[in-house]
Amino acid sequence: MQVGFIGLGHMGSGIAANLIKAGHDVTVYNRTRSKAEALASQGAKIAETPGDACGGDAVFTMLADDNAVSDTVYGDGGILASLKKGAAHISSSTISVDLSRRLAQDHGKAGQRYVAAPVFGRPDAAAAKKLFVVAAGQSEAVNKISPLLDAIGQRTFKISDQAEAANVVKLSGNFLIATVIESLGEAMALVGKAGVDKHQYLEVVTSTLFGAPVYKTYGTLIAGGKFEPAGFAAPLGLKDIGLALEAGHDLRVPLPLASLLRDRFLTLLANGGENQDWSAVGSLAAKDAGEA
Amino acid sequence: MQVGFIGLGHMGSGIAANLIKAGHDVTVYNRTRSKAEALASQGAKIAETPGDACGGDAVFTMLADDNAVSDTVYGDGGILASLKKGAAHISSSTISVDLSRRLAQDHGKAGQRYVAAPVFGRPDAAAAKKLFVVAAGQSEAVNKISPLLDAIGQRTFKISDQAEAANVVKLSGNFLIATVIESLGEAMALVGKAGVDKHQYLEVVTSTLFGAPVYKTYGTLIAGGKFEPAGFAAPLGLKDIGLALEAGHDLRVPLPLASLLRDRFLTLLANGGENQDWSAVGSLAAKDAGEA
Amino acid sequence: MQVGFIGLGHMGSGIAANLIKAGHDVTVYNRTRSKAEALASQGAKIAETPGDACGGDAVFTMLADDNAVSDTVYGDGGILASLKKGAAHISSSTISVDLSRRLAQDHGKAGQRYVAAPVFGRPDAAAAKKLFVVAAGQSEAVNKISPLLDAIGQRTFKISDQAEAANVVKLSGNFLIATVIESLGEAMALVGKAGVDKHQYLEVVTSTLFGAPVYKTYGTLIAGGKFEPAGFAAPLGLKDIGLALEAGHDLRVPLPLASLLRDRFLTLLANGGENQDWSAVGSLAAKDAGEA
Amino acid sequence: MQVGFIGLGHMGSGIAANLIKAGHDVTVYNRTRSKAEALASQGAKIAETPGDACGGDAVFTMLADDNAVSDTVYGDGGILASLKKGAAHISSSTISVDLSRRLAQDHGKAGQRYVAAPVFGRPDAAAAKKLFVVAAGQSEAVNKISPLLDAIGQRTFKISDQAEAANVVKLSGNFLIATVIESLGEAMALVGKAGVDKHQYLEVVTSTLFGAPVYKTYGTLIAGGKFEPAGFAAPLGLKDIGLALEAGHDLRVPLPLASLLRDRFLTLLANGGENQDWSAVGSLAAKDAGEA
Repeated sequence: MQVGFIGLGHMGSGIAANLIKAGHDVTVYNRTRSKAEALASQGAKIAETPGDACGGDAVFTMLADDNAVSDTVYGDGGILASLKKGAAHISSSTISVDLSRRLAQDHGKAGQRYVAAPVFGRPDAAAAKKLFVVAAGQSEAVNKISPLLDAIGQRTFKISDQAEAANVVKLSGNFLIATVIESLGEAMALVGKAGVDKHQYLEVVTSTLFGAPVYKTYGTLIAGGKFEPAGFAAPLGLKDIGLALEAGHDLRVPLPLASLLRDRFLTLLANGGENQDWSAVGSLAAKDAGEA
Repeated sequence: MQVGFIGLGHMGSGIAANLIKAGHDVTVYNRTRSKAEALASQGAKIAETPGDACGGDAVFTMLADDNAVSDTVYGDGGILASLKKGAAHISSSTISVDLSRRLAQDHGKAGQRYVAAPVFGRPDAAAAKKLFVVAAGQSEAVNKISPLLDAIGQRTFKISDQAEAANVVKLSGNFLIATVIESLGEAMALVGKAGVDKHQYLEVVTSTLFGAPVYKTYGTLIAGGKFEPAGFAAPLGLKDIGLALEAGHDLRVPLPLASLLRDRFLTLLANGGENQDWSAVGSLAAKDAGEA
Repeated sequence: MQVGFIGLGHMGSGIAANLIKAGHDVTVYNRTRSKAEALASQGAKIAETPGDACGGDAVFTMLADDNAVSDTVYGDGGILASLKKGAAHISSSTISVDLSRRLAQDHGKAGQRYVAAPVFGRPDAAAAKKLFVVAAGQSEAVNKISPLLDAIGQRTFKISDQAEAANVVKLSGNFLIATVIESLGEAMALVGKAGVDKHQYLEVVTSTLFGAPVYKTYGTLIAGGKFEPAGFAAPLGLKDIGLALEAGHDLRVPLPLASLLRDRFLTLLANGGENQDWSAVGSLAAKDAGEA
Repeated sequence: MQVGFIGLGHMGSGIAANLIKAGHDVTVYNRTRSKAEALASQGAKIAETPGDACGGDAVFTMLADDNAVSDTVYGDGGILASLKKGAAHISSSTISVDLSRRLAQDHGKAGQRYVAAPVFGRPDAAAAKKLFVVAAGQSEAVNKISPLLDAIGQRTFKISDQAEAANVVKLSGNFLIATVIESLGEAMALVGKAGVDKHQYLEVVTSTLFGAPVYKTYGTLIAGGKFEPAGFAAPLGLKDIGLALEAGHDLRVPLPLASLLRDRFLTLLANGGENQDWSAVGSLAAKDAGEA
């Protein structure tokens, strides 16, 4: 298929490369042109504007946040103005449920298609075609672009006809991880004050009940108390929890754990955590417990 | 070694059987004698009173709660009165930190030893010698009875010289599981109201970030909404969260997630959940969200 | 002074009337013209557009929410385009801290003045000139329009040079009231289940520690369990708590009580409370406690 | 009437003096005899043991906590062993609901009466006969000792036939005060970071919505940040919130505000607040917000 790709960060670059490898005809756009050139060497054409990447059957966006996506879609010469009738915008960014809903409506009015397709996985998984893709939108639209999703991940979950449902699922993922961080933080504060070594404790926990890598990864960071440099910075954690709460607000779903986490992130950011990894939230329980 | 074993429930029977298999000389006691007889056929001697099980180098207790352990230790003809100087009481029950601390003191005053050795694992793991044992107490005492712990589990973690530290670790385990239940309950309430099928959502979650069996097990119960018969009844969940909070109180460690969970358990029990599995706590977020 | 007044709801009508009584030359604007006519009979001139009300030394806005204020200020022929250099926009609506900050900036750039002056008091207090006015902004601007504030309330608090600080103070007021509602709701759930009559309990509470009318007013509603018709509707309560949380977010101030209240409001709205008084939040604790 | 009085602290001394003034025949007991002597000069007889104070129609206890009351009632030569059939134990201490229930049962079995009669008011109110008395118990018993309650307070509320209901009401009072402390703490953290002077803010709040002295008293302490010497020490605050939560546990009433307060008290005590006034809980929100 003929496909555009906008947003060549750590995730986007790997995904676009896999589209090329699968034999698709890919046109890439990135605000900083140098990243586009790296893909050109793999066979991509380079677009000079977002609109220039919209000439084919579909265009992916993999951008930082609501503002970036909104500018790219609604701006002069943006996606909405450039995409052909019947062609699809595949939105893989972590954006708000509200924006995703509006995108579905506005593309629909323009005779275009919209598929929300956020992914689970880190940059290395993106490069290795190991992503999990959560796709939602009108089934005809999703089916038509399925080969593209198959080309970028190990498995695609089609979870709803409502595009924004995929974004809710994506947001719930970071929410679940954040609850793991907080729960380990509290547990370690407790056993730590009882005199137990936190690393040894983590070994008990991960050997027995909680083998999932997320426990080992974040538990090790919390036990070590080393939160810089950030893998995923605290302000981004606050943003995603905020998006989950916003979704809960709109759907009328109270999320007390998310509320607690939001307060934790604010406490962290108010006390010097701007540049720390979001797992630093897991250090607050110990601080409340008087640990130096 | 010559060892007594008091408390032959689902867990205790399997553990005692493994002590016999390992060649130890085991005397068992159970309030309901029939369970002791089952072990007699495997080679155990039967004691008529708790005290009769205390003639050897060590005695295990694997009982329901603080009251049961307290009665067995402090009652007439109980362990404290019967155990030889230098012999050890190995306490594997899930009891309060406070009681464990008192047991350590009182056995110490009597010239006896005390090792807290709660276990992680279910009855089938106990029977299969697959338990993880968390042991704490004076290192000489722990070392001396190590062969017994090796006989009942796949691995022993020696985590502190303070016996009660092992109980804190054990309590933290059920606390962590309960946070998983609550977090899945909230996430499913959110995605459910966004129109996503809960079972499919769980498949996304467990395929990607959360492969640990605890997510699959409890997530399936919550998605299915079927909480009876109870594998682990809600009142027991409340009890264990209460013990964790009590430990936090005594050590001056605030545990906001545990506080939230305690309130959830009370809500559940106030609304007909007495006989439900503790995972029913994971249904409350959806109820708050207005799900029928 | 020559002054405009935009927004003649229950509050605005009383305030505008007091400006007239104090001898000021008042031009009023309201989207529904009939309300303006009522004031014309008291001596006001009627403006046909918001901009027509901006010819004098100052213009008040007393509108429903951020959107209404934003439209009136930034719309074609709005306040920003119409107000003379040196004249002041006095904003008495309950709006977000963020909008208030932007208004201060934009009026400043246009050579205009901006004073945030939200009020405490109900419509009857507005009519009786019994309001308390919380004013903030550059001191010269505040001082210049002080006679107007003196004309509408019993006391003016000048609390900051930063206009938006007044909005924070206003939002904190509804936050404090909401905490009273929740605390009474929990206390009554507790004593109610202990067999105490809630109305008698309220008499104990208000006779002893809590004489403030807010306890009597909301306590009576909660004890009676009658939440319709709404004096202040639940969705408005959610809105104001949301604005307080938003202010906390921007200032990096975690507000755990506000988080808890937000979840309560969502629970209420998800379960049929859209048309109920916000004090219905005080019924949720009893519901969680299993009260029919 | 012939009446004993056990516990002559700040509260008890004032109450006992009023019983004497009302013409009752009062025998007092206090562990530290000197306090009893002060009352002897006002006409009281001095008892050498708690039991010696139990010869009349009724005996009051006004003691520090559950342990003190329990020892005095159940100890050798205690109240239970000494009180005549038909005579009443009037319990005015702030004790647990559970102990109050047990006292009602045990006195009942002994043919004695039990009235729970905790009071609202500080020592100066006790001395001035301005207390509010919350009484509960079998109505015949309460009626019989009513003249005694009339002698010590300005008003008696008879709120239930179940004695322990009075204790629930008493505990709810300190819970409500603690919520005021926390809510003011959060509100001040918010407005403080917005640049508003906290004392001036408090004046706004208490002039408008919250005239009750409790707001002025605690707000002034929080705004001033001076928490020593303690009027009511933080550990006592934790104790009372703990008793409220315990009552909620037994009655199956979740109290999320009380849970939050408990965590706040633990945080305070873990960070050097052992000797501070309980209003220091109101400083924690500002600390979380990064205020120096």
